[in-house]
Amino acid sequence: MSEDRLIYMPLGGAGEIGMNCYVYGYGKPGQERLIVVDLGVTFPDMDTSPGVDLIMADVEWLAQNRDRIEAIFITHAHEDHVGALGHLWPRLKAPVYARVFTGAIAADKMTEAGQPVDAVHIVGPRPAVTQAGPFQVQFVPLSHSIPESAALVIDTPAGRIVHSGDFKLDGTPVVGEPFDPREWLKIAKEKGRVRAMTCDSTNIFSPNPGRSEATLAQPITELVMGQKGLVVATTFASNVARLKTLADAGRAAGRSICLLGRAMNRMVTAAKQTGVVTDFPPTLTPEDAADVADADLMLIVTGSQGERRAAAAQLSRGKYLGHELKAGDLFLFSSKIIPGNERDVFRIWNALSEKGVHVIDDHNGTYHVSGHANRPDLEAVHELVSPQMLIPMHGEHRHLTEHAAVAAAKGLATAIVTNGTMVSLSGDKPVVVEHVEAGRTYLDGTVLIGAFDGVVRDRIRMALNGLVLVTLIIDEEGEPLGDAWVEIMGLPEKGKSGRGLADEMEHDLTDYLKTAPQKVVADDDKLDEQVKRIVRQAAMDEIGKKPEVMVVVSRLMAE
Amino acid sequence: MSEDRLIYMPLGGAGEIGMNCYVYGYGKPGQERLIVVDLGVTFPDMDTSPGVDLIMADVEWLAQNRDRIEAIFITHAHEDHVGALGHLWPRLKAPVYARVFTGAIAADKMTEAGQPVDAVHIVGPRPAVTQAGPFQVQFVPLSHSIPESAALVIDTPAGRIVHSGDFKLDGTPVVGEPFDPREWLKIAKEKGRVRAMTCDSTNIFSPNPGRSEATLAQPITELVMGQKGLVVATTFASNVARLKTLADAGRAAGRSICLLGRAMNRMVTAAKQTGVVTDFPPTLTPEDAADVADADLMLIVTGSQGERRAAAAQLSRGKYLGHELKAGDLFLFSSKIIPGNERDVFRIWNALSEKGVHVIDDHNGTYHVSGHANRPDLEAVHELVSPQMLIPMHGEHRHLTEHAAVAAAKGLATAIVTNGTMVSLSGDKPVVVEHVEAGRTYLDGTVLIGAFDGVVRDRIRMALNGLVLVTLIIDEEGEPLGDAWVEIMGLPEKGKSGRGLADEMEHDLTDYLKTAPQKVVADDDKLDEQVKRIVRQAAMDEIGKKPEVMVVVSRLMAE
Repeated sequence: MSEDRLIYMPLGGAGEIGMNCYVYGYGKPGQERLIVVDLGVTFPDMDTSPGVDLIMADVEWLAQNRDRIEAIFITHAHEDHVGALGHLWPRLKAPVYARVFTGAIAADKMTEAGQPVDAVHIVGPRPAVTQAGPFQVQFVPLSHSIPESAALVIDTPAGRIVHSGDFKLDGTPVVGEPFDPREWLKIAKEKGRVRAMTCDSTNIFSPNPGRSEATLAQPITELVMGQKGLVVATTFASNVARLKTLADAGRAAGRSICLLGRAMNRMVTAAKQTGVVTDFPPTLTPEDAADVADADLMLIVTGSQGERRAAAAQLSRGKYLGHELKAGDLFLFSSKIIPGNERDVFRIWNALSEKGVHVIDDHNGTYHVSGHANRPDLEAVHELVSPQMLIPMHGEHRHLTEHAAVAAAKGLATAIVTNGTMVSLSGDKPVVVEHVEAGRTYLDGTVLIGAFDGVVRDRIRMALNGLVLVTLIIDEEGEPLGDAWVEIMGLPEKGKSGRGLADEMEHDLTDYLKTAPQKVVADDDKLDEQVKRIVRQAAMDEIGKKPEVMVVVSRLMAE
Repeated sequence: MSEDRLIYMPLGGAGEIGMNCYVYGYGKPGQERLIVVDLGVTFPDMDTSPGVDLIMADVEWLAQNRDRIEAIFITHAHEDHVGALGHLWPRLKAPVYARVFTGAIAADKMTEAGQPVDAVHIVGPRPAVTQAGPFQVQFVPLSHSIPESAALVIDTPAGRIVHSGDFKLDGTPVVGEPFDPREWLKIAKEKGRVRAMTCDSTNIFSPNPGRSEATLAQPITELVMGQKGLVVATTFASNVARLKTLADAGRAAGRSICLLGRAMNRMVTAAKQTGVVTDFPPTLTPEDAADVADADLMLIVTGSQGERRAAAAQLSRGKYLGHELKAGDLFLFSSKIIPGNERDVFRIWNALSEKGVHVIDDHNGTYHVSGHANRPDLEAVHELVSPQMLIPMHGEHRHLTEHAAVAAAKGLATAIVTNGTMVSLSGDKPVVVEHVEAGRTYLDGTVLIGAFDGVVRDRIRMALNGLVLVTLIIDEEGEPLGDAWVEIMGLPEKGKSGRGLADEMEHDLTDYLKTAPQKVVADDDKLDEQVKRIVRQAAMDEIGKKPEVMVVVSRLMAE
């Protein structure tokens, strides 16, 4: 009979930055008791997922092994760690554990998806321990760009695992707990050598040590103090420390503060209610703020990544909730652009520039610091924790590769473990024991669909190629009744000939149908094929494109 | 009778980086004789222009004033300056002037579009002068990231204009002419003060002086020398100096060189044929290179911006033209990512990383330098030329704004002149005299369509919302014949009820039609409206989305 083993398998987050979902297991092979760490989302884009609302890990394997899941742990309240909870929980139905602020946001996610909020259990930080089957799990406070981010210390019969979560080394994080190296040294030593550390890889390509959130207060305050018009600043809604830094700067400059954006108000409310921030400056409602002179007001707004419906984009387009930007006002991006969002952010910048608004970006870190540990910080943590194995997570393949190279150079056993790869951590080094189908699930409207179901592929094809719709009626004698009818969508009305594209297609189809063999007309598939061929040829001749074609043949039945 | 005036109007390039098209005019208001500088393209994206092949300036105003156009000047052979020539020339039909290498590429563009190649006239650099109506135009050699980039010195009865084109200050550009400050001082002085300089704004946000192309040879050579496997490097196909630097590095490391990618081979051939490069190292064909051992070979390939059909992307996916990358090989991006292309570039990087290929980016400028003048370089040029007016061009609104602020700080008259704004340069400062409709024209397949024709909007809607097609037959008595037929595309097959989405819609439509008022069934518009309402409601209930709906009603006629 085979021995118990300790396994690790990412289902999301190891191959992209986003949709984090990690699984640990302990027990007999194939019967391990499981815990899930994080259930996050990633965001769609027009290139790969037009019309999709959210993207999350495919948890089919977990759903099939639902009876083996002891618990779900949420490390922190960023969307890429908790955003899928409400959507995927019905398929897993395990108890959810989180700290108080994170738990409040997790509860929101459950409520929004119509799931039972009492599945979420609030637990305290280490030394509090949650027993989950063979696992004892502690939440270890860490600094990040959201309050209350936590690493997990996971004790198993095979030794201790440290799951870093998202973190940076910040001794003065403004809000939330600082990174505490003494505590980490204890974690590293108290149960013998840490067996494995799974570790954030986001900033492995950043060569310089990260800076503290506290370094931003002075430059931001000086910037705001120098302004005469309205001041607007944007950052991530969940970065409560930054919101406080910005608001404090505004107050120091004698300005009233107003938060614009639903997500930001929710985060600040949750932070106050759960006590993670106790000294947030007073804020005005948008209505009350509308009565304050521009020179006495600072807006802190959502939409730092250029999201089209968020406050920053709304303000760039015109009046929003009673506020309007004008020449001489200041707009500060206290943020960096997440790769892929450049066009959206610059669209807002340019729109503001057209209004004469002075736009300032992070100025190379003067007005923004990252929430993730940079390469030297990661190396410091490797040394501090000194695990037997270091497994990079939370990164695209290139980040995992670079992080593994850094770990290997330090003599740590390591491996590049991507989504769907199950490794055993029972030995001296990670050993691949299984591959599981790991894909993506799309939330599309209210429906969960597989990324490869073909639904989104069809949308992309229509977007690239346009659509032609042909309807044909075949009468009771099996003869075409009247001419084919063509409608086009997403295609030019006229092509090379200068005549209507649809007319040309109808003309060609009529010509064909006059002499079409009876065996073609009688056969739906053959007729469909011929009609598509004729329509595509006409399109190529007229407009140089091959459109998507839908053919509907209605056959009248003799009564 | 009003006096002659000197006008400037961008139609593309002043509000984006791309699709450059600038107009100068001299004469009586409304009768100015015109010259056009550059006819470039910009590239589509899924967010705003899915399925579109190329984007270019809307030249409707020029077409309407075709008889006033004396000439078209092309400053250099980058796509954003010459790419639209073949497509737009038939609407303008003016003689085209360019230097020899640029002219070769311009001739390609004419040929590809079926336009007469003899419209392109080759002219030499200054002191050669092209007379074009009231304008005397000289091409002034400048350094840039393509051979033979030129500024234009445009002498008019109202004084001298300097149109910078794209440039950097490089005294050692490896291929092509260096920036020559003594020549520029002459240009600044020989006809009195320069009236206006229109100036490249691309790198106005880059705070440090630019570096020379020549600084790259040593680090790239050292990098290649250290490799044991196959070495692949990518950069812009048209950056012949970089291709030479890369090829020289490969040769120095004892490797044979092979260029992969049609555009790159075309550029190098044109550069050799026109004599702009005389010492390009020998290269192998892809077939011959396939027989060379990896350790003895260097591939230089197209696709540095992640273009899906270019060589870099092909190699990241698998075997391409007999070459395949493997663990331990090196892939160098001797390029920077143009904002907006991040996802495409990282997709390739990650795919290579999965193969174990070592990927190196520009390493903060070690392996790449920009082709555009940075802020201090622009300031140096402002001082050197010392124009009466400095008008920023070649930039998004934010670049133009920043550049204008820099010029104003130096005491130069300036203005932010965006696409479609006509300014008079006859006085001490730019004065807006007219606004012209300035939009975008799409090449879609082989057809030119307006950006606001609705064609692309429909494609985007289909991509975001999916499509439902309903066909209905109404019989000779005006009664529905059989049930409605529904087909869906780009929508989930099943929704909340677990039944087929199309079936649900058909069911709801059948229910409706049973009792539908005769006046609705008899009226195409009313019936269409009702059918759409029912289908959208069913979709909202089942899948939480409102799809696009096409309704085709066929009415049978009594014979």
